[in-house]
Amino acid sequence: MASSSSFSNSPCAACKFLRRKCLPGCIFAPYFPPEEPQKFANVHKIFGASNVSKLLNEIQPHQREDAVNSLAYEAEARLKDPVYGCVGAISVLQRQVLRLQKELDATNADIMKYATNTFPGNNSGVRAAGSSFGQIYEYDQYPPPSWNNSFSSSSAGHPYDTAGDNNT
Amino acid sequence: MASSSSFSNSPCAACKFLRRKCLPGCIFAPYFPPEEPQKFANVHKIFGASNVSKLLNEIQPHQREDAVNSLAYEAEARLKDPVYGCVGAISVLQRQVLRLQKELDATNADIMKYATNTFPGNNSGVRAAGSSFGQIYEYDQYPPPSWNNSFSSSSAGHPYDTAGDNNT
Repeated sequence: MASSSSFSNSPCAACKFLRRKCLPGCIFAPYFPPEEPQKFANVHKIFGASNVSKLLNEIQPHQREDAVNSLAYEAEARLKDPVYGCVGAISVLQRQVLRLQKELDATNADIMKYATNTFPGNNSGVRAAGSSFGQIYEYDQYPPPSWNNSFSSSSAGHPYDTAGDNNT
Repeated sequence: MASSSSFSNSPCAACKFLRRKCLPGCIFAPYFPPEEPQKFANVHKIFGASNVSKLLNEIQPHQREDAVNSLAYEAEARLKDPVYGCVGAISVLQRQVLRLQKELDATNADIMKYATNTFPGNNSGVRAAGSSFGQIYEYDQYPPPSWNNSFSSSSAGHPYDTAGDNNT
């Protein structure tokens, strides 16, 4: 829940960090309470206070808490992994979804085989094979197709390329 | 692949945007070619040129291309969705992984049943039930447990809460 620090005597974490007076109506105060100084420090280091302030002013007040929390999540991920940030997580998850769908497809093929052997001509007791198809995640693919080539040609490779993908 | 625009006559997209001379050794030039002006504009709007420059200087040269591309991906996602940015994608993918694992678990339970009926006392032809377990995605959960409560209490709700999750 948004903090009410703007109405208390303590300046919010943002104003304390920026060494300025925390006035009533401070755009940061509800989302950067003084007891969480690292949250603002991270967001400031990655996005900059000015960019965050602009972004908050461009969205509805009821959306600001979620926006700050997602920015804080992104900032922390970028500080932990300066090269990939939270985009590394998207890459791992996309591979995991593809692997699971492949595994489910194979398992469904097996079950069709067993069902046909057990009840020839009757598949009524079988889960719909491929029932997960058509629900493939449609968010922008990472890496985007437009820079797949440059991405894969990097000598560094992607640190997540093989993560969680040992049995495929 | 990184552009060689720093050695051409055209200033890179960053220097053109910032209206400064693109000198040899420009930190941006290899990754922001003049023919992709929007890439720098997006990254500049979300992260700021100074923060990007600092980040690039803190990592190894061979990592910079991937870093720029992941920053560009994050920036584009934040411009499309100012509240959740690419963190929304992480949330959708995490739900999709959980749904697929649940479906695979149920399908594996079915196949065990059929295998037992077909070959009593012999499961050798059956895929290992739950073979995907133990590989659950271990990246930081989104939303982090520490702000689950505030996140779910938001009146706005999460735009991805039900996306791709219609059959669970």
